[in-house]
Amino acid sequence: MKIKVIVTLKNGVLDPQGKAIQQTLNGMGFESIKEVRQGKYFDIEVNENEETKAKSKVEDMCKKLLANLVIEDFKII
Amino acid sequence: MKIKVIVTLKNGVLDPQGKAIQQTLNGMGFESIKEVRQGKYFDIEVNENEETKAKSKVEDMCKKLLANLVIEDFKII
Repeated sequence: MKIKVIVTLKNGVLDPQGKAIQQTLNGMGFESIKEVRQGKYFDIEVNENEETKAKSKVEDMCKKLLANLVIEDFKII
Repeated sequence: MKIKVIVTLKNGVLDPQGKAIQQTLNGMGFESIKEVRQGKYFDIEVNENEETKAKSKVEDMCKKLLANLVIEDFKII
């Protein structure tokens, strides 16, 4: 089954990439944009039929590889 | 209000980054992972109280800057 994960920077961690996107958008005429923060998204195909098992496997993967828990949070959706 | 956007590669477009993640996960013992595809995630703070207006603004931004519609799809969530 397919599991989707979003990895985002924790609040308070600087996001220069998001800032650059925000400034570009402002420059393009989208002046109402106050903040942009960029994160990562993963679509993971797990060979496992039980949803809870697949999700716990993906959680393990996030902790070990996909997210840097010092500065990032992850959310399985 | 905060609008979230996911930008993913279209089906059929090669994703070497996702492939590398999949192979690394397989090598770490997660052998049940069949495919990983990576995308981008944006958290956008729009200075607009009406949800439909904010979303239509973000859709416009996706088409003009955030997504390359030749190879990518976007989803506002």
